[in-house]
Amino acid sequence: MNCITSKDLKRAAGGENDADVLARAIWSRVTEPADPVLGALLSVLGPIEALEWISALARRSTTPSEQIPAGLRSLAPDMRARIHRAVTRWQPRLVDIDTGREMRAIANFDGYLVTPSHAQWHPGLMDLGFETPACLWVRGTGNLAQMMNRSVAIVGARAATAYGEEATAQLTTGLGERGFTIISGGAYGIDITAQRVAVALDVPTVAVMASGADRMYPRGNAHVLERSLATGLVISEHPPGSAPTRARFLTRNRLIAALARAVIVVEAANRSGAISTARHAVKLGRPLGAVPGPITSMMSAGSHELMRSEHAVCITDAKEAAELAGNIGEDLAPPVAVQETLFDTLTKSEAAITEALPKRNAAASASIARTAGLSIDETISTLARLELKEIARREGSLWRRM
Amino acid sequence: MNCITSKDLKRAAGGENDADVLARAIWSRVTEPADPVLGALLSVLGPIEALEWISALARRSTTPSEQIPAGLRSLAPDMRARIHRAVTRWQPRLVDIDTGREMRAIANFDGYLVTPSHAQWHPGLMDLGFETPACLWVRGTGNLAQMMNRSVAIVGARAATAYGEEATAQLTTGLGERGFTIISGGAYGIDITAQRVAVALDVPTVAVMASGADRMYPRGNAHVLERSLATGLVISEHPPGSAPTRARFLTRNRLIAALARAVIVVEAANRSGAISTARHAVKLGRPLGAVPGPITSMMSAGSHELMRSEHAVCITDAKEAAELAGNIGEDLAPPVAVQETLFDTLTKSEAAITEALPKRNAAASASIARTAGLSIDETISTLARLELKEIARREGSLWRRM
Repeated sequence: MNCITSKDLKRAAGGENDADVLARAIWSRVTEPADPVLGALLSVLGPIEALEWISALARRSTTPSEQIPAGLRSLAPDMRARIHRAVTRWQPRLVDIDTGREMRAIANFDGYLVTPSHAQWHPGLMDLGFETPACLWVRGTGNLAQMMNRSVAIVGARAATAYGEEATAQLTTGLGERGFTIISGGAYGIDITAQRVAVALDVPTVAVMASGADRMYPRGNAHVLERSLATGLVISEHPPGSAPTRARFLTRNRLIAALARAVIVVEAANRSGAISTARHAVKLGRPLGAVPGPITSMMSAGSHELMRSEHAVCITDAKEAAELAGNIGEDLAPPVAVQETLFDTLTKSEAAITEALPKRNAAASASIARTAGLSIDETISTLARLELKEIARREGSLWRRM
Repeated sequence: MNCITSKDLKRAAGGENDADVLARAIWSRVTEPADPVLGALLSVLGPIEALEWISALARRSTTPSEQIPAGLRSLAPDMRARIHRAVTRWQPRLVDIDTGREMRAIANFDGYLVTPSHAQWHPGLMDLGFETPACLWVRGTGNLAQMMNRSVAIVGARAATAYGEEATAQLTTGLGERGFTIISGGAYGIDITAQRVAVALDVPTVAVMASGADRMYPRGNAHVLERSLATGLVISEHPPGSAPTRARFLTRNRLIAALARAVIVVEAANRSGAISTARHAVKLGRPLGAVPGPITSMMSAGSHELMRSEHAVCITDAKEAAELAGNIGEDLAPPVAVQETLFDTLTKSEAAITEALPKRNAAASASIARTAGLSIDETISTLARLELKEIARREGSLWRRM
């Protein structure tokens, strides 16, 4: 195999900054996501030196040399063994790496790479610690970092019910009206319903793929995802051409949670992908909401379980979703509207007298006082007020309901 | 008017203990429920002395004498004015009281009076403080205090939906199987559904009336309430013959909350009686549950609001309801059942290799290692394990999915 040196990288990339991007692109091809050994290497050595060191280690097929950087040793006492295992894990892909071909892959990509030094990098991604992605492959229209400042992830069941899709459409519409970007995974069911409604209303979206950003997966949703590129982004931590795998769906969910200002689960069976995204949200400190549904629907069981076990906030409309994700003081859900009834406008004693007033045969104030449980004096003065309000009618010395 | 003396009470009742009961029965007729002045009088003077003193005050129609008991003065600095207002409030009914007639009312009542010294008095009622009822008029079958030790109040909307009634039936059935008594208000909708299902299954019930316990209100539910007397109780703090009023429906709700081990709201519009019961539960420290429903149903809006504002626990089945109301360690809801899939039985690397295995054309282990993102060594040992599990099939030096 070739040994990748920093000189190679700089020559292939044509500059120091571009070498950093190229090295991160290579790391995104060599490793599976959320590999904490990579995270440690990137944070201590940076992508270029890490690649140079690891590819030298891989070529010798030995344990990491004695010159293991102090920063790595201080992170974990068993770091030598972990790096050794990582190198053997990465070796089958490392041997295939060709810096020139990787540069061409970047150049041919119908989009751009967002790395930590890029203006569109979202600081929230750093909350992932050593599971922060090396880079993001981004396609479409919009500024990722700006969009994420006002964003809600709407996730849920693939086997969504009509009710779940209706709830998703309501939330997406209302959040769109309030200027939020909708983040989803582009899966069947709730994800694609959010995406479809957003696209129809020109609401910006960010779809986070478990495959490469050039592969619209699942195929059945490809037309919606393609259309979303006009007003939103399709992103991935995997290089173009990557296939989605089970593990990648799960690691993808951490990105959805890290990017979003809040995560809302609409429908979810127990143990579903949406539940995994919800757990990531809790772990990352992102506000978590869940949309309730009938207790007779298995598709709402996961949402209800999140309310019980993870203290997800019960979300019933877009106002509440916006409040969960929004800026304090700006997106407060208004108190529930209340319709006044006659009795709301009456004092306690007016209400008691109104009820005590006979509707047919008028009664004496003493009798009304007994029925209402009020004193004679209060009864008489209250009857006078109710007469003005046209609720009580006087008939000689007797009273009845008007 | 007659002045009611303790001698009168003892003579009419035929004994000291019965005089206490008679005085409380009279208080239940003279006052409206949850009157804190009565609560203060009862706790400082007891029902007999309080009645004697107040009826003397009422006869003179003056402000409370200088001999206002020290215990009352220490409770509230404005107690003299409050007692004065209370006496004028109570006077129209006090003038009607005839101790002999009240004794006959008790004797003619198809049930019995439960007072704080009675074995069936539920200590939880004392949590109401000065709003504790003077007594309870009880009809039917069962021991109130014993039943309340294992009880759930199921309350909700009068205009319940079919979904709400189904949820109520499920909860009632499951709670009945677990030995719980169902408390409700006997109203149309959720209340009577709980009552009807419980009666059909011989599950004990306690219906708390806003009218006298002899008046089955509303009339449309009278047959269910009558039938419930064979296995449960119908109770009220109002004397026989009392009419239900708006205020009494609201004060009745505090009794439901005080009696129950937990309160569960099934369906509730905003600002409904069920919400008032829920607020009482929170105030009294009773566990509060709410059954979620579709966000598109106005009838579930109140339940959802309780989850948001009062931190009601989301309740989706009888197990969870029993856990909310039950004894710790005895009624824990079991964790949600999980069905194992193939991938649950595999290690992380076995799952990655299984996905990487081609289904048609067999591939070399090096290629499978690259796809899975694992080292050659781990790939080969994992393939051997998957061969034993009959997931991987060897074809010469190549491998494919079995």
